[in-house]
Amino acid sequence: MTLNVGVIGVGMIGQDHIRRLTHVLSGAQVTAVTDVDLDRAKSVAAALPAAKALQTGQELIADSEVDAVVVASWGPTHEEYVLACIEAGKQVFCEKPLATTQEACERILDAETAAGKRLVMVGFMRRYDDAYRAMKAALNDGQIGAPLLYYSGHRNPAVPPSVTTDGVLVDTCVHDIDTSRWLFDAEVVSAEVRSPRRSSLAAEHLQDPILLLLELSNGMLVSIEAAVNIAYGYDIRGEVLGETGTIELAESGPIVVKREGGFGGRVPSDWRERFIRAYDVEFQEWIDAAAAGRSTGPSSWDGYAATVVCDAAVEANRSGQKAPVRMRERPDLYRDADGATNTD
Amino acid sequence: MTLNVGVIGVGMIGQDHIRRLTHVLSGAQVTAVTDVDLDRAKSVAAALPAAKALQTGQELIADSEVDAVVVASWGPTHEEYVLACIEAGKQVFCEKPLATTQEACERILDAETAAGKRLVMVGFMRRYDDAYRAMKAALNDGQIGAPLLYYSGHRNPAVPPSVTTDGVLVDTCVHDIDTSRWLFDAEVVSAEVRSPRRSSLAAEHLQDPILLLLELSNGMLVSIEAAVNIAYGYDIRGEVLGETGTIELAESGPIVVKREGGFGGRVPSDWRERFIRAYDVEFQEWIDAAAAGRSTGPSSWDGYAATVVCDAAVEANRSGQKAPVRMRERPDLYRDADGATNTD
Amino acid sequence: MTLNVGVIGVGMIGQDHIRRLTHVLSGAQVTAVTDVDLDRAKSVAAALPAAKALQTGQELIADSEVDAVVVASWGPTHEEYVLACIEAGKQVFCEKPLATTQEACERILDAETAAGKRLVMVGFMRRYDDAYRAMKAALNDGQIGAPLLYYSGHRNPAVPPSVTTDGVLVDTCVHDIDTSRWLFDAEVVSAEVRSPRRSSLAAEHLQDPILLLLELSNGMLVSIEAAVNIAYGYDIRGEVLGETGTIELAESGPIVVKREGGFGGRVPSDWRERFIRAYDVEFQEWIDAAAAGRSTGPSSWDGYAATVVCDAAVEANRSGQKAPVRMRERPDLYRDADGATNTD
Amino acid sequence: MTLNVGVIGVGMIGQDHIRRLTHVLSGAQVTAVTDVDLDRAKSVAAALPAAKALQTGQELIADSEVDAVVVASWGPTHEEYVLACIEAGKQVFCEKPLATTQEACERILDAETAAGKRLVMVGFMRRYDDAYRAMKAALNDGQIGAPLLYYSGHRNPAVPPSVTTDGVLVDTCVHDIDTSRWLFDAEVVSAEVRSPRRSSLAAEHLQDPILLLLELSNGMLVSIEAAVNIAYGYDIRGEVLGETGTIELAESGPIVVKREGGFGGRVPSDWRERFIRAYDVEFQEWIDAAAAGRSTGPSSWDGYAATVVCDAAVEANRSGQKAPVRMRERPDLYRDADGATNTD
Repeated sequence: MTLNVGVIGVGMIGQDHIRRLTHVLSGAQVTAVTDVDLDRAKSVAAALPAAKALQTGQELIADSEVDAVVVASWGPTHEEYVLACIEAGKQVFCEKPLATTQEACERILDAETAAGKRLVMVGFMRRYDDAYRAMKAALNDGQIGAPLLYYSGHRNPAVPPSVTTDGVLVDTCVHDIDTSRWLFDAEVVSAEVRSPRRSSLAAEHLQDPILLLLELSNGMLVSIEAAVNIAYGYDIRGEVLGETGTIELAESGPIVVKREGGFGGRVPSDWRERFIRAYDVEFQEWIDAAAAGRSTGPSSWDGYAATVVCDAAVEANRSGQKAPVRMRERPDLYRDADGATNTD
Repeated sequence: MTLNVGVIGVGMIGQDHIRRLTHVLSGAQVTAVTDVDLDRAKSVAAALPAAKALQTGQELIADSEVDAVVVASWGPTHEEYVLACIEAGKQVFCEKPLATTQEACERILDAETAAGKRLVMVGFMRRYDDAYRAMKAALNDGQIGAPLLYYSGHRNPAVPPSVTTDGVLVDTCVHDIDTSRWLFDAEVVSAEVRSPRRSSLAAEHLQDPILLLLELSNGMLVSIEAAVNIAYGYDIRGEVLGETGTIELAESGPIVVKREGGFGGRVPSDWRERFIRAYDVEFQEWIDAAAAGRSTGPSSWDGYAATVVCDAAVEANRSGQKAPVRMRERPDLYRDADGATNTD
Repeated sequence: MTLNVGVIGVGMIGQDHIRRLTHVLSGAQVTAVTDVDLDRAKSVAAALPAAKALQTGQELIADSEVDAVVVASWGPTHEEYVLACIEAGKQVFCEKPLATTQEACERILDAETAAGKRLVMVGFMRRYDDAYRAMKAALNDGQIGAPLLYYSGHRNPAVPPSVTTDGVLVDTCVHDIDTSRWLFDAEVVSAEVRSPRRSSLAAEHLQDPILLLLELSNGMLVSIEAAVNIAYGYDIRGEVLGETGTIELAESGPIVVKREGGFGGRVPSDWRERFIRAYDVEFQEWIDAAAAGRSTGPSSWDGYAATVVCDAAVEANRSGQKAPVRMRERPDLYRDADGATNTD
Repeated sequence: MTLNVGVIGVGMIGQDHIRRLTHVLSGAQVTAVTDVDLDRAKSVAAALPAAKALQTGQELIADSEVDAVVVASWGPTHEEYVLACIEAGKQVFCEKPLATTQEACERILDAETAAGKRLVMVGFMRRYDDAYRAMKAALNDGQIGAPLLYYSGHRNPAVPPSVTTDGVLVDTCVHDIDTSRWLFDAEVVSAEVRSPRRSSLAAEHLQDPILLLLELSNGMLVSIEAAVNIAYGYDIRGEVLGETGTIELAESGPIVVKREGGFGGRVPSDWRERFIRAYDVEFQEWIDAAAAGRSTGPSSWDGYAATVVCDAAVEANRSGQKAPVRMRERPDLYRDADGATNTD
């Protein structure tokens, strides 16, 4: 009954997933690993109870002791491995992005559609966070009427100097983009970017903070703020304005301390502290589904949509104009109970 | 030592100010009133300890028993009365708007500048609210570094069907516009409008909610949301994103009740509940200054700036484009210690 | 129509009331002052627009230019001045305590009852605080069913070394005692004291914090905590446990600041910051009532009850046992619409 | 490497632990179950991948396919099974209470001490809750100086009519008692009970709410409120008053909703919602320790102490007096790194 998992890419994120599969969650074990750095793969395997190190991702995917695959390698390699998993008929958990270009994403959609069965889950872990799930439940419960406007704030204490403005739009805002599509069950139809006064803490080449405005297919406006050198903490904000009320993410600190003239709580220091539970829930749901031969969670379609919207955001930032988001028609495979927006 | 005040316009707002001057605050008494409805003026005067009803605003302004004037009449009449007060050398508190056109505002600027002395205070009462003052103090104290982005949310439970989209931009957002100029000591340089999905609770002709984006002279971006049929209450939101932190207006309910599966507090039901104290503080500061022959608070320049920005917002909404805000040069009169942004 | 007020005692508190009567509130002016330090009285009078300094409290009470009296002198002198005001038929606002012994309080009850008219208001200002009033309104509204238990926390940043444990029970807890009687419309029937681990910040002779447990006539238990060297701020806490819910005083900070890994708001630094508005409201209601020849607010009965309960608390602390609270029967004068618990 | 677990007692709680061991956590599998209702044991075993049903607890403890034991049977049977586990040298997780009498607890202490090795962990799951752990960390970090006073509120929406006042003191307050010992690393030295006005929602024979006052060996006072028919939700409150500040458990709702005149969040509806994560963490730590041949968590000493304090609380309630808590000397086994209060 244990799911045998092969992990491609054993850098920081891959190793964190291996820890989770081995020491935290139920029903899975890591049986094979691989990495561009084969020595690293060997050393990781050696520390595991039942894992071998394999030469290549392709070899790992083909291995008979691998039931399902986690892709945590460098983004540009995702397409190749995901396609191979589809061909092998094995469930694959692919860290975001699904692939780095729209065309690559479309090749995955084509292959999975041809296979006639969902096999791919993309790692948008916010859908598994308690607070976002409570927000979606309250929305679906009709507590504030139809949603009209959504503010999504994405604040990082700091980023390395190598991070570019395009990188912020693609790697940071992608979470807010996926969350918006999922919360409101709607596609993005256009993107605009606004550039406020720059923080003196940001690298010279970086526009920080940045405001990304999205129109959704249901008419809603989404205002995404990314501020990636905000110093004070890792702070994920969200507020939905509905017809008759609002829903906000609450502060997450479990205690309130009063001292030195003030009262207050902690802001998380990084994404691990904020979303560690969401990662656990996400993987457990994937393990349970994969073991049962089912698919679940964010689909290839969601991965494709995120990439298309990110590309439009980059284009909008370059042109200073509103950029339309043009997506292909959604295949039936992603419409039904296994479909993109059906995750809970 | 008591300041004798004449009140022009004794409708709902005028009567509320009379109540305040008579029964709440120190150092003033209402000695004369007038109104387009003279019978109403007479009846209001009769209920006061020491007031007479006069035929016209001009007569009231000229009256020797009137030291200072409150203008609470219909907007289009403001210019005439304010100009008359300047000519008479009497301090005047003018409810917003200072005047309904840029040209009228400029005539007031010209007259006051020619008089060489500030005599006009415009009723932007949020500057006197505890929470906004605490926000400005924390900003000035450097608690979050330089401000970069400001969200201002203006939510009304409902508006009469007669309210238009232009009306929302001019009469509702004017408070957020003035607050932004004051908090950040900067002028607005452009306006844009975005129209999210409409609330089904709004009248058919009304764009509600609406998003007004302002660029400030210091590079900041201000995002103003007006939602005037939000049903749940009168909710004034504000959050400044700075380089190293944020400042938000807190919820204002004085108690937390736990019952029926939840905990929570009240949202104010209307602007009176939310800002009643700010009105008291605003008037007391005006009385104290006027009695001492000083001017204080939001100036004609602030009234002029608000009108110019509101006009740009209306233009931006019509064109769908960014509209520049073009203001004349600020006269020296509004630069010094008595100037526009020096209110505390 | 202006109420002419005489002020007995112009120390810190007396001067603050004079400022309030002169510069903040409506409908009153200070026409006479006196003090044990006559020079101080003269100097205070000289700074006022229309006040004279008189030799004694008795002279002031008798003065024809004094309509109503504020007693802000040393506690042991209160009885004499309050009795003189009753004899003169003048409304008197007496800072707490009404008098320093039960016998003195009873003499005041007797005199006022003989006069057949309420003339005395005792300065329990918490009854005029927005938060306590909201708490009482929610209780009366039945939002949490019958109240069963009440926690009242009284925290001061520091007290002078001269403050004794008896002083904390009498001067600090008196506010919590009066608030409990008022909120729940019930008398105290017994008092007990518990002494937790002592704070190293307290003077050696002082039991700090201290817990005072009161039983009320309706069966409720009240748990009062006084912690008078708590360092972090002036923090007044309150929570009512009812049959179906709870009501708590909310934090009072008007803004939330996020910085350096945390979010939070201010705790007031002293009683002035926390209750300045309550003092204003309290005095305005007294002025309005006195000018109209009415009485209002906490009565002599409330002052008497507070003194009796404080005495029982001191006794309980000495004996280590539960001390019964024995009060005389409440005269009819304090039962009706002008009665003790009818303040709103 | 998988820990083979036998479960004694497969009622509601036992089955929930089986679900946890089988579907949620890592490193364990249930290999044997037993129950007084053997048919129930068989049916539970049949639904598991690798479990057999055994006739008796003794048989299960002796079984070679059982590495470690969970005792979730009826309280009076705990002693027998725990003693058998100690004799068999197997790690045992025992749901509270450790045993129902002081004497039984002492027999367990004697047996474990004789064995010379800690083998027993008692199920006080609050020690594994994020909020309590954050409270303890902030305390240990010195954020509020030495702790002086602790309020612990235990509120249940409702209890069955069979629940007695003694039952509330023993089964409900036991969690607050253990939490107090653990948070402050101190023993309880006396107990007192106070009975406020009764809730009309409580069964006639039940004192509800009830106040339990404990003195700790470090001088602290602990005030425990149990209100078990509070209707509004399952609400666990806690506030530590320290020398220079306070630490409170924050509200736990992940979102804030604004609607219908108010803002607020959810209170948990039952202990499962509030503490489900704590149970998971507790068991994972036990599995990891047991698999490594280590002991962890609340010890037999903690179970013994809780029982002695609960007995004193019942005695105090009967007598109306303060009841001393008399414990034997703590064996060295519970003093060192494996000791009672060393859980993190």
